[in-house]
Amino acid sequence: MKINGRTYRSIWFDNKEEYVCVIDQTKLPHLFNTVAIKNWMEAAEAITRMVVRGAPLIGVMGAYGMALAMKENPSNKTMKIAYEHIIQTRPTAINLEWALNRICNKIKNLDLAKRAFAAKLEADLIAEEDVAMCEKIGVYGCNVIEDILQNKLRRGQGRILNILTHCNAGWLATVDWGTALAPIYKAHRKGIDIHVWVDETRPRNQGASLTTYELFNEGIPHTLIVDNSGGHLMQNGMVDAVIVGADRISKKGDVCNKIGTYLKALAAKDSDIPFYVAAPFSSIDWLISDPFLEIPIELRPSSEIMNIEGKLLTSSGISEIAKVAITSSNTSCFNPAFDITPAKLVTGLLTDRGVIDSNEKALEAIH
Amino acid sequence: MKINGRTYRSIWFDNKEEYVCVIDQTKLPHLFNTVAIKNWMEAAEAITRMVVRGAPLIGVMGAYGMALAMKENPSNKTMKIAYEHIIQTRPTAINLEWALNRICNKIKNLDLAKRAFAAKLEADLIAEEDVAMCEKIGVYGCNVIEDILQNKLRRGQGRILNILTHCNAGWLATVDWGTALAPIYKAHRKGIDIHVWVDETRPRNQGASLTTYELFNEGIPHTLIVDNSGGHLMQNGMVDAVIVGADRISKKGDVCNKIGTYLKALAAKDSDIPFYVAAPFSSIDWLISDPFLEIPIELRPSSEIMNIEGKLLTSSGISEIAKVAITSSNTSCFNPAFDITPAKLVTGLLTDRGVIDSNEKALEAIH
Repeated sequence: MKINGRTYRSIWFDNKEEYVCVIDQTKLPHLFNTVAIKNWMEAAEAITRMVVRGAPLIGVMGAYGMALAMKENPSNKTMKIAYEHIIQTRPTAINLEWALNRICNKIKNLDLAKRAFAAKLEADLIAEEDVAMCEKIGVYGCNVIEDILQNKLRRGQGRILNILTHCNAGWLATVDWGTALAPIYKAHRKGIDIHVWVDETRPRNQGASLTTYELFNEGIPHTLIVDNSGGHLMQNGMVDAVIVGADRISKKGDVCNKIGTYLKALAAKDSDIPFYVAAPFSSIDWLISDPFLEIPIELRPSSEIMNIEGKLLTSSGISEIAKVAITSSNTSCFNPAFDITPAKLVTGLLTDRGVIDSNEKALEAIH
Repeated sequence: MKINGRTYRSIWFDNKEEYVCVIDQTKLPHLFNTVAIKNWMEAAEAITRMVVRGAPLIGVMGAYGMALAMKENPSNKTMKIAYEHIIQTRPTAINLEWALNRICNKIKNLDLAKRAFAAKLEADLIAEEDVAMCEKIGVYGCNVIEDILQNKLRRGQGRILNILTHCNAGWLATVDWGTALAPIYKAHRKGIDIHVWVDETRPRNQGASLTTYELFNEGIPHTLIVDNSGGHLMQNGMVDAVIVGADRISKKGDVCNKIGTYLKALAAKDSDIPFYVAAPFSSIDWLISDPFLEIPIELRPSSEIMNIEGKLLTSSGISEIAKVAITSSNTSCFNPAFDITPAKLVTGLLTDRGVIDSNEKALEAIH
C-alpha cells in the first residue's frame, strides 16, 4: 500500500544486502524510518520492541528470523536456540508459532548446507502467501461491505458506510493489504463511500498512530476517537459495522484480539450492529476449546500506560520525539494486551477461505 | 480529604480576601497549585478550562461565580449576563443549571444591596450541603459494599473487594468525599480491604491523574488500567462491583456520565457484576424522559485527543510539564465527553436518600 504516494510493504528481503528491511512502527506517524534486520537476534528484538507488530507480520518476521539464524549457522543447536528465543517474544498471537514451526519442519531433515537457502525461500513464501491471503480477505470482506451498504441504502439511511475498527489490523500489521482494513481498501477502490471510525487503542495508540496513517495515505476518510466513544456512536446510529482483526481464534470461533475488542463487540450486539473479525484461516487454533483458560494473554509493562511518546509541542516550533509521564511515578498499573470476544458476539469471520459463521460446526466444515 | 497528610476541600471561600480558592486540577498529579478565583469571569473560565471539573463541583463553582458577580454589581443585568455566560460553559451536567437557578431564585426578589451577601451565603450552603450529601452517599454505599463483601466471603472467593471505577468521581469532583469514591472512603475507614481498579479515562485521563492521586493520598490500594481493560478483568472474576458517578440521571433512571461508562455497564451485565451509580438525588432531571434525545452531550475539542500533557521525561532528570502530539496534525477527531447508560444496565443508584432502583417507579416513590 502507499506512503506519500509510493508503494511499500511492511517487510521485505533485500536480496543484494542479504538482510530484512522493515518500517519502524514505533516512530510513526511522526517519522518514517526503515530498519535493517541483519540477524535473528535483531529479528527477535524487533518483535519485542514492537518495531514490527500485528499478528501476521510478527509471523513473517519470525520466519525471516529463522532464515537469518540458518544463514549464520545452520546447526540444530542454532535452530533450537533461535526458535526458543523468538517464540517467547510475544505469546498471544498464533502466527509466530505457526510460522516458526513451518520453517523448522521445512528444513529439519535437510543437509545443513541447504538449510539457509530453503529457510529463506520458505520465509519469502510465507510473506507472499500472507499478501495473497489478506487480499482474499479484502475481496470476501468487500462483498460483505457491499451487502451492508445495500441494506443501508434500502432503508434510506444515507450512502456513506461508517465502519469502526479497533487497533491496527491494516497493511502495517501484515505484509500488505491488512486484515480488518483489507475489505475497506478493496471497497474504497471500487468507489464505495466509506468513512472509518478509528479507535485510538490505548495503551500503545496503534489506532491513533498507525491506522490513521494508513488511511490518510490511501485517501480514505476517517475520524479518530478515544476507545471510550465507540459505544456512544453505536447507540446513536453512527456505526454501520465493526471490523477488527484477530491474534488467535478458538476452534469454537471465540476471538482473541487487542484489549478492548470485547467491549466493542458487546456494544455492537446491544445496538444490533454487525461485528466482523477479519483474519487468515490459519489464525484458528484447533487446540483451543476454552480460550479463557488456554490462550496466554500477554501482560505488558506498566510504563506503556504511564509514559506516552509523541512529538513535543514547543513554542519555538522545534519538534522532536519525547516522552511524558501522565501519572505519578508511584502508580501501579496492570496491562493485559489482549482480550477474548466470545463467539456469540461475532457476526462472522472474514477469512481467505470466505466468510464463515463463528461457531465450531461452520469452522469444522471448512477445515 | 487528604493531600500529603493535610486535609483539603476542592473549593473554599477565603473570607479575609473575599475570593474563592480552588485546587488547579489541570496540573495534578504533577503539581499541586491552588488558584484564586476573584470574579465571575474567572469562575466561568475555571469551569471551561477544567481547572475545576466534576458535576457537583462545577455546580458549586457556578454558585460562587454568581456570588462574585453580585459582589461586583448586584444589578439584574449583571445577574442575567453572568447566568447566561456561566451556564454555557459545560452543557451536560445538571448541577450547574441547578445551582445557578438556586442562587438566582434566592436573590432575585431581594434589594440590590442585599444580593451579594445572600448569594454568598447560599453558595456556602450549597457547598456545605454537597459535603453532607456526599458523606451520606458514602454511608449508604458502604452498606452496599459490605453486602457485596459478605457474599464474596460466603462463596469463599477471597476477602479483598475489587471495585472498578471510571473517570474521577472522588472528592476532587465534589467539595469533599466524592460520589463514587465516597463509599470506598467510608469502607476503607471501617477497615474493609478494598482494591480499586482505576480506568485511565481518555481523553482527559482523570482516572490516571486524579483518582489515583486521591486514592494514593488516602492510602487505598489501587491499580491503574486503560479503559480497554475493564471488560477483560470482569470476564476473569477480577472485579466484584463497578461504581461510577453521574452528570445527569433521567426520570427513568438512565445515567449520563463520562464517555465510556456505557461500555463498562455492558461488560458488568455480561459478567453478572453489580453496577452502581453514585450521585446526589438532585442529579435526577425530572424533565428528561428520553436521554438520547434530550440530554445535550458536550463535544470537546480534537486537541484533547491529539495532544497529551504530562511530565517530560528527560535524560537530564529535569522535569517540566510538556505536551506531546500523538497523532499527525492532519488527523480529524470526534470527542463526545459523555454517554448514556440505559437504566436496565444499572443495579442501583447510591444517593443521599438511600439506595434506589434505577427505574421511574422507584425514583418517583422517593421524589
